[in-house]
Amino acid sequence: MTNLASLFYPKSVALIGATDSPGKLGAIVLGNLIRMKGAVYPVNPKYHEIMGLKAYPSIEDVPGTVDLSIILRPAVEIPEMLRQHAGKARIALIVSAGFAEIGATELQEEVARIARELGVRLVGPNCLGIYNPFHRLDTMFLPHTCLKRPVKGNVAVVSQSGAVMVSLLDALRQARTGVSKVLNYGNAVDIDASDMFDYLAGDVKTDVAVCYLESVGDGRRFIAAARRLADSKAVILLKAGKGLSGQAAAFSHTGRLAGSYEVFRSVLRQFRITEAQDFDSLLDATKALSFQKPLPGRRVCIITNGGGAGVLASDECARHGLEVNPVPVEMAHRLKACFPSFYVVGNPIDLTGQVKTGDYRIALDAVRDAYDGFVVIILTGVPGLTLELADIIRDFHVKYGKPLVAHVAQGGIAPRLTRLLEKSKVPVYGSPERAIRGLAMLLGGDGNTRARN
Amino acid sequence: MTNLASLFYPKSVALIGATDSPGKLGAIVLGNLIRMKGAVYPVNPKYHEIMGLKAYPSIEDVPGTVDLSIILRPAVEIPEMLRQHAGKARIALIVSAGFAEIGATELQEEVARIARELGVRLVGPNCLGIYNPFHRLDTMFLPHTCLKRPVKGNVAVVSQSGAVMVSLLDALRQARTGVSKVLNYGNAVDIDASDMFDYLAGDVKTDVAVCYLESVGDGRRFIAAARRLADSKAVILLKAGKGLSGQAAAFSHTGRLAGSYEVFRSVLRQFRITEAQDFDSLLDATKALSFQKPLPGRRVCIITNGGGAGVLASDECARHGLEVNPVPVEMAHRLKACFPSFYVVGNPIDLTGQVKTGDYRIALDAVRDAYDGFVVIILTGVPGLTLELADIIRDFHVKYGKPLVAHVAQGGIAPRLTRLLEKSKVPVYGSPERAIRGLAMLLGGDGNTRARN
Repeated sequence: MTNLASLFYPKSVALIGATDSPGKLGAIVLGNLIRMKGAVYPVNPKYHEIMGLKAYPSIEDVPGTVDLSIILRPAVEIPEMLRQHAGKARIALIVSAGFAEIGATELQEEVARIARELGVRLVGPNCLGIYNPFHRLDTMFLPHTCLKRPVKGNVAVVSQSGAVMVSLLDALRQARTGVSKVLNYGNAVDIDASDMFDYLAGDVKTDVAVCYLESVGDGRRFIAAARRLADSKAVILLKAGKGLSGQAAAFSHTGRLAGSYEVFRSVLRQFRITEAQDFDSLLDATKALSFQKPLPGRRVCIITNGGGAGVLASDECARHGLEVNPVPVEMAHRLKACFPSFYVVGNPIDLTGQVKTGDYRIALDAVRDAYDGFVVIILTGVPGLTLELADIIRDFHVKYGKPLVAHVAQGGIAPRLTRLLEKSKVPVYGSPERAIRGLAMLLGGDGNTRARN
Repeated sequence: MTNLASLFYPKSVALIGATDSPGKLGAIVLGNLIRMKGAVYPVNPKYHEIMGLKAYPSIEDVPGTVDLSIILRPAVEIPEMLRQHAGKARIALIVSAGFAEIGATELQEEVARIARELGVRLVGPNCLGIYNPFHRLDTMFLPHTCLKRPVKGNVAVVSQSGAVMVSLLDALRQARTGVSKVLNYGNAVDIDASDMFDYLAGDVKTDVAVCYLESVGDGRRFIAAARRLADSKAVILLKAGKGLSGQAAAFSHTGRLAGSYEVFRSVLRQFRITEAQDFDSLLDATKALSFQKPLPGRRVCIITNGGGAGVLASDECARHGLEVNPVPVEMAHRLKACFPSFYVVGNPIDLTGQVKTGDYRIALDAVRDAYDGFVVIILTGVPGLTLELADIIRDFHVKYGKPLVAHVAQGGIAPRLTRLLEKSKVPVYGSPERAIRGLAMLLGGDGNTRARN
């Protein structure tokens, strides 16, 4: 087991390559770091002071031992920089690129060897590092003007790729999904996904772990760590580098070889770890599992105000083995008595373009006991809908606690309705099929927190 | 062959059920209709005048013969209303629901029989009807405050479902894709997709036809019409009602039985009609084919500033049989000489998080002859990118004319960059995989306008 507490909650951080030149990476990272709860030591021999903090010529001049040292210097300088870390830092995070990913494997091996000899743990090289909103720790060299950060939440992000991690952070923020711990570990000469899984298994702030992988170093260790993590958290993986060209791309990206995809896949299934097929599925699954807990059952009721959207949702249910059984006869009679004759009381229940807001309440209340999960399709192009619909759905969800997702589309009140629903932890998706994929993540669970695919 | 000119370019339209009561469907439709190029006759015995137009007690009182009559009255009244159409209208569009989709098949058959006897062509029942921005004709009962309409463009939309059509219109508008002709034909007792295909084959305004289908009436006729249309236009179909539950949903939606999906599918392949697997693929394919013409070739170059996004794109290329070959040695040498040592000159070409705007120009210019299509991945979370990138990509695309798509993500300048690129007819997608799916639509063509899947 790896304790990464000093990585995510450092009391002191040194930044080697700190500067105040606007636009330089060393200035962006320092600007983000000074918000941290703890001491920050800028290291740069050219300065006495940077951004109001005393600057140090080298890590050796920094008082005491820092929990974390962040290195932002060209690749060729790293071995020398690292040697100065003897007794000065617990963990070094090497942001710099220019190692195995461009063929400089010897340089990378030298760096790994030096760190081992000194007893310093390494993150990177070739990575963005860490974001932990609970400690206001942020090592990413991305200005807030370019990338707004997601808020505090229950999703941990573990990514070999910095780019995918950042895209995911931006998408999670837009999906109103907060994060607990974020790590991009790049070339992974030391700390990697397995270490993170070990750490996250004991992290009370994390309910869902999302992982983007291209390669796995020690396969046996990875499997053990993933299995342990999946015992207590929902785990969603996106494995890239699947085809031959993808594997070549993955190798040149972080300099590690992507293993056989098929072997990897069978392992995931075994531990009921969810495998996402692409970036969008990863995002959709994460939102669902972050907002709601999976529950047993496969019976889905589709309530819509547009027939075609209901048919697309039905089709997608069939692809996921979800049952779309007709509304039981008794219930159907009761519903038909409440509704205009042209509403279709089947499954989907089609409230048509002439829907009124309250019709959704009537439908949900009538069928609540006959189904395990609900998808509410709201097409806002029609005149009869108001924002009160968000209250109706929230109340139903809070009262009965069954998995419930929504598809909202067509403009008008759609953006505001989406915001209200997601505030109430009802995940909203941009198409009927994506809504069902989200719901599929929440159905078929065993009643614990784990999700099945 | 069916000439639907009087449907899409009517010189005169009657609206049966017109009113000026705010919020009523008859008021919404009339409000939209009066923008049309042509005469509009509101029909309602309760009014002398509506919205400044003379109102008529019945269709029989309207002067002469109208090209199009739109009927907005309860289902049970429709047979009587329709009988009054003798000699008064070429085509009647029945918006009202409450026919076969709720089991009222006899009523629907009666309506069909009356229209046949009178020689009046029918659209509907249970439909939204028509949108033709070139004639400012809009029969949809959706207020502009709820649904903004897409602008004029080259995409025709043919949909059995009103809801899917409206979702598609809203999505196309957001994707800056304009439309040429739009028809939702609902229960299709007379005019259906086959008639539309016949008409669109001769419509110079249309380059791409997008069709959402749940069922096909006369299979042989449909196949002949689709084949003829695909000879001159790109055709993309989304067939819903695939599984058993989907088929049941499709039946209760428009009261027509969805046929065997497998048979349908083999027919599509034969005529190189693109089949979309879900709503999002339909949209992504439409945008690509609306913006650019397919060309022969399978060799793709991926230019990115984030390694992981490039790996995901490579994986998706493999799934579509697209080749991601390394940059030829000579070119690679030239490129490496221009770039910092830590850029990865493979395929993907990874310009890393330290990219500068001009690097994309250098990369594109260097590799232009070695590939058939390009995907440019732009992750705007990094500090070095400016909006000038849109000019670089537009110039390259205009000069060489090869298929080119983009994935833009991560906030900052992303929305503005997306807008500029799409103005230049470079389709932009929200994930690497969706960008490749868009590019796949544009590669492997035979040099004509047709797309292969």
